[in-house]
Amino acid sequence: MKLGILGYGVVGSGLINMIDKDSKDRGIEIKGILVKDKRKHIDKKHYEKITEDIEDIFSEDIDTLVELIGDEENAYKYIKRALENGINVVTANKAVIADYGDELINIAREKGVSLRFEASVAGGVPVIKVLSEAMSGNQIKSINAILNGTTNFILSKMHDEKLEYKDALKKAQEVGFAEADPSADVFGYDAARKLAILSNIAFEKRVNWKDLYICGIDKVSALDIDSASELGCRIKLICHSEVENGKVSGYVRPAAVETGNPLSGIVNENNLVEICGDSVGKIALVGKGAGSFATGSAVYSDVTDIIENPGSNLSEISDEITNVYKNPEKKEDFIVRYPVESYEVVENILSDNNLIFRKILSKDGDISVFIEKVTEKKLDEIDEYLKNTGFQKSSIRIIKID
Amino acid sequence: MKLGILGYGVVGSGLINMIDKDSKDRGIEIKGILVKDKRKHIDKKHYEKITEDIEDIFSEDIDTLVELIGDEENAYKYIKRALENGINVVTANKAVIADYGDELINIAREKGVSLRFEASVAGGVPVIKVLSEAMSGNQIKSINAILNGTTNFILSKMHDEKLEYKDALKKAQEVGFAEADPSADVFGYDAARKLAILSNIAFEKRVNWKDLYICGIDKVSALDIDSASELGCRIKLICHSEVENGKVSGYVRPAAVETGNPLSGIVNENNLVEICGDSVGKIALVGKGAGSFATGSAVYSDVTDIIENPGSNLSEISDEITNVYKNPEKKEDFIVRYPVESYEVVENILSDNNLIFRKILSKDGDISVFIEKVTEKKLDEIDEYLKNTGFQKSSIRIIKID
Repeated sequence: MKLGILGYGVVGSGLINMIDKDSKDRGIEIKGILVKDKRKHIDKKHYEKITEDIEDIFSEDIDTLVELIGDEENAYKYIKRALENGINVVTANKAVIADYGDELINIAREKGVSLRFEASVAGGVPVIKVLSEAMSGNQIKSINAILNGTTNFILSKMHDEKLEYKDALKKAQEVGFAEADPSADVFGYDAARKLAILSNIAFEKRVNWKDLYICGIDKVSALDIDSASELGCRIKLICHSEVENGKVSGYVRPAAVETGNPLSGIVNENNLVEICGDSVGKIALVGKGAGSFATGSAVYSDVTDIIENPGSNLSEISDEITNVYKNPEKKEDFIVRYPVESYEVVENILSDNNLIFRKILSKDGDISVFIEKVTEKKLDEIDEYLKNTGFQKSSIRIIKID
Repeated sequence: MKLGILGYGVVGSGLINMIDKDSKDRGIEIKGILVKDKRKHIDKKHYEKITEDIEDIFSEDIDTLVELIGDEENAYKYIKRALENGINVVTANKAVIADYGDELINIAREKGVSLRFEASVAGGVPVIKVLSEAMSGNQIKSINAILNGTTNFILSKMHDEKLEYKDALKKAQEVGFAEADPSADVFGYDAARKLAILSNIAFEKRVNWKDLYICGIDKVSALDIDSASELGCRIKLICHSEVENGKVSGYVRPAAVETGNPLSGIVNENNLVEICGDSVGKIALVGKGAGSFATGSAVYSDVTDIIENPGSNLSEISDEITNVYKNPEKKEDFIVRYPVESYEVVENILSDNNLIFRKILSKDGDISVFIEKVTEKKLDEIDEYLKNTGFQKSSIRIIKID
């Protein structure tokens, strides 16, 4: 197996290390490595194979292109070119797969080569393999997951060190858990892309990640954290999708998770994915969702899978786009944060609607209220009423899950 | 894919149900089903394909034999015959794989057919696939697992309902969680066979299950349960194996697991397997280790794997038998139960050896003692001394894990 590798950063280094120490002699050979600036890699192994020119990679006689450059536009271009030229592709690029997975896998099928992307979701956790192979005879009913390490780290810091969001984000940036521009992580876009990929495979319908209900963690305050703790919960950025009567729904949002639920115990870069199949029941997978060796390990297993089963592809990836269904009538439990001065009004509406609720805590002019079995539609109505009567509407709705 | 199925019990029914509802039209066709007594299956689907004669199965033109009869001797015979005749085999039989896996997979390789056995360990949890495929580039360092539902159910009952072992066993038998003869489960043999299979694959060396350190749960008392609770632990039958400097060691034994450890929260028929790889780190898998549909799902995925990748086999199964290493000098924390009257003697020896220890609880003439960082060799010496001075030795040693 002759590899062209695009990118020699964190994941690339992990992969190359694994190839070099391969004890099984699988015959994996590195033919070229594309980087942006060759000088930065002068002390690295395989320096003689490093190039800044993509044409050097394609002019080598490679069987498989490993794409680890991150940048969506170029990655898409190179992946497509490789597949069209009958070259297998392994990628860790969630953006490319979320946006173009269906198109690219069709090209791979036509050309009789493989496109694999285990590392694009949950790093070292082999969730795509489990979904598509081990659960092959199951109708998948739902997915619950923590898929983003940055937000998980920030929320843990807020809980454990009583920090406000901004300070926790700063800490995350200092230790390398968050990027200088953390938008894709903290707004939930990264997690939503990953959830869309998993939902695609699980439900065999193309889910556009932008159609999911997405709420990031940037509005979570210390008051919300304390309120969740009062209820025996920890706030996590939860990814959930499900199918019911053929309709797919899903969200990425801060949720208060009871401490008995394994999702509440996931720390730092660890990911958890729980998949519910109609035959096997729930299967949960836990492991590192990021990191050089963890993600490198997932890329490596894709490479060895292609060696073992040349030309195989996921049959579940479909180009039938599905409408992501939103049900504003679904009743859930919520922690909602209102301005203190509006609370009397809120209380009246909740009472008039026979809803069960109670104040949890108040701080800095805000009050958090736990409301049982309420619809988002009703919460929207309350917000609308507050706005029309001169109050500020709620700052955040945190769903509570057992 | 033309199947001959041996056995139409719990797992067979789950599998056949999945085949019948297969939405993907994978072309799986049932050619014959072997049972012991045809009259018992008169109201079942595919009755016309049921036979009591194995020759009816082999005389059909089958590609794959699915072996689900349990009985080790016949299962081995039929599996071997199938493989020798160029027929793929899928089995859920841990006894056959633990005892003859190496021989059988060699025959499969020679004949260019597949032998698959995902369902033999941890039921619906795809641990063999994850070990052999998803962690392909990793050196596996250790395995920690709960692999037996019967003992897990009994120990949970003992904790939650304060039952003695005998009463908890009776309850387990009443609700179908334990067999009339529960020996293989409660003595730890079932778990040891499964651990041996996993260790085989993980360490690529044949581990004889009888060479593992095995201690069942039949000697665990209510006092032990209470003592573990006092330390913030729950007693679980833990399977552990590891490799260090090329030496494999492993045990199946009751262990006091701290409640923060996910192993402590596994209930009933659920299994947990945590595998540590040198690159990916720890991957944990949780799901149902038994049951009609869960185990049927694992068998089904093996069948679809053979359709996708005909002739493929695990490369990790080796016939190089390894010595399972025991290190009596390794220091661990233990809860040890002594007769109350011997405690003064025990106390003196522990003090003389500068060991840190403390009494936990006493009941019915027994006392439980928590001893830190002590070797099994030292505990053996104390037992020997007790015996020589007219006392009874300790009743049980429960290892404590964080």
